[in-house]
Amino acid sequence: MIIVLKPNTKEERRKQLIDWLKGMNLGVHISDGQFQTVLGLIGDTSKVDMDLLASLDIVDTVKRVSETFKCVNRKFHPDDTVIDVNGVKIGGGNFALIAGPCSVESEDQIVTVAKAVKEAGANLFRGGAFKPRTSPYDFQGLGAEGIRLLKIAREETGLPIVTEIMNIADLPLFEDVDVLQVGARNTQNYDLLKELGNLNKPILLKRGLAGTLKELLMSAEYIMSNGNEQVILCERGIRTYSDYMRNTLDLSAVPMLQELSHLPVIVDPSHATGIARMVPPMAMAAAASGADGIMIEVHNDPIHALCDGAQSLTPDEYAKLTKKIKAIREAIA
Amino acid sequence: MIIVLKPNTKEERRKQLIDWLKGMNLGVHISDGQFQTVLGLIGDTSKVDMDLLASLDIVDTVKRVSETFKCVNRKFHPDDTVIDVNGVKIGGGNFALIAGPCSVESEDQIVTVAKAVKEAGANLFRGGAFKPRTSPYDFQGLGAEGIRLLKIAREETGLPIVTEIMNIADLPLFEDVDVLQVGARNTQNYDLLKELGNLNKPILLKRGLAGTLKELLMSAEYIMSNGNEQVILCERGIRTYSDYMRNTLDLSAVPMLQELSHLPVIVDPSHATGIARMVPPMAMAAAASGADGIMIEVHNDPIHALCDGAQSLTPDEYAKLTKKIKAIREAIA
Amino acid sequence: MIIVLKPNTKEERRKQLIDWLKGMNLGVHISDGQFQTVLGLIGDTSKVDMDLLASLDIVDTVKRVSETFKCVNRKFHPDDTVIDVNGVKIGGGNFALIAGPCSVESEDQIVTVAKAVKEAGANLFRGGAFKPRTSPYDFQGLGAEGIRLLKIAREETGLPIVTEIMNIADLPLFEDVDVLQVGARNTQNYDLLKELGNLNKPILLKRGLAGTLKELLMSAEYIMSNGNEQVILCERGIRTYSDYMRNTLDLSAVPMLQELSHLPVIVDPSHATGIARMVPPMAMAAAASGADGIMIEVHNDPIHALCDGAQSLTPDEYAKLTKKIKAIREAIA
Amino acid sequence: MIIVLKPNTKEERRKQLIDWLKGMNLGVHISDGQFQTVLGLIGDTSKVDMDLLASLDIVDTVKRVSETFKCVNRKFHPDDTVIDVNGVKIGGGNFALIAGPCSVESEDQIVTVAKAVKEAGANLFRGGAFKPRTSPYDFQGLGAEGIRLLKIAREETGLPIVTEIMNIADLPLFEDVDVLQVGARNTQNYDLLKELGNLNKPILLKRGLAGTLKELLMSAEYIMSNGNEQVILCERGIRTYSDYMRNTLDLSAVPMLQELSHLPVIVDPSHATGIARMVPPMAMAAAASGADGIMIEVHNDPIHALCDGAQSLTPDEYAKLTKKIKAIREAIA
Repeated sequence: MIIVLKPNTKEERRKQLIDWLKGMNLGVHISDGQFQTVLGLIGDTSKVDMDLLASLDIVDTVKRVSETFKCVNRKFHPDDTVIDVNGVKIGGGNFALIAGPCSVESEDQIVTVAKAVKEAGANLFRGGAFKPRTSPYDFQGLGAEGIRLLKIAREETGLPIVTEIMNIADLPLFEDVDVLQVGARNTQNYDLLKELGNLNKPILLKRGLAGTLKELLMSAEYIMSNGNEQVILCERGIRTYSDYMRNTLDLSAVPMLQELSHLPVIVDPSHATGIARMVPPMAMAAAASGADGIMIEVHNDPIHALCDGAQSLTPDEYAKLTKKIKAIREAIA
Repeated sequence: MIIVLKPNTKEERRKQLIDWLKGMNLGVHISDGQFQTVLGLIGDTSKVDMDLLASLDIVDTVKRVSETFKCVNRKFHPDDTVIDVNGVKIGGGNFALIAGPCSVESEDQIVTVAKAVKEAGANLFRGGAFKPRTSPYDFQGLGAEGIRLLKIAREETGLPIVTEIMNIADLPLFEDVDVLQVGARNTQNYDLLKELGNLNKPILLKRGLAGTLKELLMSAEYIMSNGNEQVILCERGIRTYSDYMRNTLDLSAVPMLQELSHLPVIVDPSHATGIARMVPPMAMAAAASGADGIMIEVHNDPIHALCDGAQSLTPDEYAKLTKKIKAIREAIA
Repeated sequence: MIIVLKPNTKEERRKQLIDWLKGMNLGVHISDGQFQTVLGLIGDTSKVDMDLLASLDIVDTVKRVSETFKCVNRKFHPDDTVIDVNGVKIGGGNFALIAGPCSVESEDQIVTVAKAVKEAGANLFRGGAFKPRTSPYDFQGLGAEGIRLLKIAREETGLPIVTEIMNIADLPLFEDVDVLQVGARNTQNYDLLKELGNLNKPILLKRGLAGTLKELLMSAEYIMSNGNEQVILCERGIRTYSDYMRNTLDLSAVPMLQELSHLPVIVDPSHATGIARMVPPMAMAAAASGADGIMIEVHNDPIHALCDGAQSLTPDEYAKLTKKIKAIREAIA
Repeated sequence: MIIVLKPNTKEERRKQLIDWLKGMNLGVHISDGQFQTVLGLIGDTSKVDMDLLASLDIVDTVKRVSETFKCVNRKFHPDDTVIDVNGVKIGGGNFALIAGPCSVESEDQIVTVAKAVKEAGANLFRGGAFKPRTSPYDFQGLGAEGIRLLKIAREETGLPIVTEIMNIADLPLFEDVDVLQVGARNTQNYDLLKELGNLNKPILLKRGLAGTLKELLMSAEYIMSNGNEQVILCERGIRTYSDYMRNTLDLSAVPMLQELSHLPVIVDPSHATGIARMVPPMAMAAAASGADGIMIEVHNDPIHALCDGAQSLTPDEYAKLTKKIKAIREAIA
């Protein structure tokens, strides 16, 4: 950690700060420049409160040199992490095509859609059983029954299943689920993340509604530091002033997350845009940005979907899209 | 619900939509204008997916007329809700001065600060036992021991205590806590909210990091619709592009929430600004905006605080501030 | 225009509003629903203040039905506008590869870069002569001399030139410039836009730093309503809370602007990201989103560039990128 | 300027950078720590491109130590600037109560409102003659005639007048105006700012729609560095995701700007909220935050106002508000 003192700091105040730092068992390397003094801290600075230091009137700036990300950090793990979901690989050049309806509605619906997306090229199947809804009066998902139906879809198609978990108490229901998703509203539900860190199962972690990349990586760190290294990061749009779509898809997060971390990074253009006809151009853009996968809502009957029909593609539209995505991946290879 | 169709919509498409709406057991009142057709839906529209309708190519706009907020809505509850915390009232003209350290650190610290803030005018005492931290490597709070120490502070001062809950599994530890706080990262942790709705205890609900007023009210609705009507709303700064402070305090939320809802609205300028010297002007501004209370971090030794010392006032600074707040409240009365 | 009145509006207040509207020479079509009354206004509503109506306590919502965009609106001009810049076409399937340095520095520099980008595939050349800089102490551009040098680069390469205008008084200097650029800080400098509307020359109009799509289209409308129909829209990143890059590139603006308007839409990933190594993935994503062109900063010697070197590609990097962009455009065709 | 190199930077790369810096006539003070090397630059670093340095792969971080603000900086001008507008003082404890209609409409209107706001306590009168409107089809103001009418209002009341300038070419019309306002859309219209820097007249400079505090101060620097030191800063709401009001009033800008600069800081709650009934609480909050003045839209007949009637107070409402503002100023004194 480096602390830059303000010009003209009084010797007494400066000594006071240095003594306080030494009192925390830190070595302090002092470098006096023409304009300013720079203090370099040596030792375990993880307990030092940067904000507090920055708030002192004699301090100009504070900068951490050692990394706050550990497990997620590409610096300590230069190779891409490849996650294996029952034989389907994600990351390191392996592309995930995750598709399925927003909500599980019925056996007929879920099996129909699963077969359709498989034929269209999907290699993972998604569907919501527990649904986080802004209003307590909206459809909250089929719950345990929804998970049972997802497993039937898996049996019928062989596609591994991805579904969202909202509550630690529900964990037993997810024992046989292939990938557990943490939604944008729970990205910083740290107790949930810690529990998921105890599993040996891939976790698909969505960026928070207004989450920074650092916060997303730190949430992944909560999972990984507890022992579970199978984390997939997911960009799903951020909240901005822009009002033409539900959220603003931040595709620059893809190359930046891939630079900072070795974890696979996928994109969810359905939730980001909220408008079905905007999904294909944004999915193609995501593929061109170098994403490791794309998760898309597909419904055989969008007009009757219980939830988020506005953003679902039909299986036909999805099949056309996966062809373009494959062509783009070849173009950028 | 009102649906405005686009100009020149074909009769056939229009009929199709109307039939579909009628199939959902809704009455449809058709009003043909010179430029457009407006459909007024009659019946239970709570199941109708507005986004889906809005996404149809023949639909120009969709507008809900009936209210989505129920329990929180001032329309159905015109009088201010007054929450009684062991004799300390909040709302309806009663002002909450909540103060205390970010984290509970030791018995000595917590009792010292509690006595100091009481003398300075506080009527509720706050302190964090379970701390949501962005990094898994940061101090996570004393947990159960922290709650034990808060109760000692209550015994010594008589001030009711406020502390944050992050995990449903911890609920038994909070049985004897006076006000349970839900932090900004858990504002949309709906399973937690539902459980808190089963309690008979005041809940202090913070606005999400980038939460809209509607989302905050809907989260309160999750608590209230489960039976617990004692909810205190808290503005604590929102995430914007502005980078001089930690967050941007949105004081206009105070009068707007008070117009939309009957619940008390308090303000937390400490977390909003993250800088101790900015807390007094923002606290005074909050009082002048008509807030029902102000929550401020106070520490007897900010420089040594384990967490967020940068934003803590000393007891002396707090005492000066409470005097000004009282004077402002008289000025606007 | 449609006005939805609040439920239980008193007859007297309602009559007052209707009389006031009629006093503005508007026809008022009244439609009484079970829950609400909808007023449909007939006539020239362009003078009606929507915000004022919306603020009335008896009004629930106000919705304009007739379009506020006229010249830019695809509804009234279904075919793509194709802009011809001295034989180089943009829009309607014609792709603009605009490249060049941030600032014009010297004849040697500008001719070297122009030749290099031409060879790398660019069909338009850009360079800044007048530079809008946040600080008055930063390099403000070579001005008239810069434009003189750009013309030399055009002579040497045949590439039409694009450069920014900041001040109406400078117009005579731009007489022989091929495309005039309006930068993000001047997107709502309406007096400048009106003047540019009097020219017969393509205008490249950048989105404001925090501009909405509607504002961008309205700024284009300022130019077009004055008679100049040659406007190219440019997405260049918007200001959000996200802090890993200079701005957040909003690629969803591309398909949405193309739906709303017939004007060509190009993307500037250099200013959006501010980081050279992030430019290629974002440029490829822009191509995949369906953009009509991409504008990129290229410098033969980025390390010595007077301005924005951090975001410039070398000619080699640019040549590799244009190949990928072409391959992507074939993939999505 | 301080440059922190990344750990394990190769000696050769490091030498290359240092030589390059020395080639710019800078002294380089090298400080080798255990983990990193810090370079301290000595000499005129104003030409050094921080972004470029920060983008080099061997550089961890770059920090400017010398100040980029000069004229506006409180460090070099510790006392509050007091601006004298024909005897009405602003700043240094002197409070500006600026009021008037959004647009000048007629002599009768403008004189009536001017008299009313004077009686209600205003000490400066404002009204728009040139109006920046998002749509070219909206009312653009009375122009020169509007300025003529404002002067009549000044004659009748003695109140100095404030009005917006959008175009350098209009300057002659403003010769006899007391305070020239630069609106949010022109905050970074640098050519306009430079011209205003040549005047000897107070400039009321509004923060940009999504302007940072640094950008606002830099825009003031454009005016001041040209010689005109009479600048009043104005917070008028920023663009955020929050959608209940037109903009989000950022009152924390008040104490922060006052800390960074010696210039007076006023607040415009009318444009920030866009809703008349939200203006009084936000105006009171602004006063409590320590602002040096408040600018409010007042209209004798808001329902008929040509522009922004939705946010105007009546003279009666304004009179009540000024009393509260005065009481608050006493409370915080």
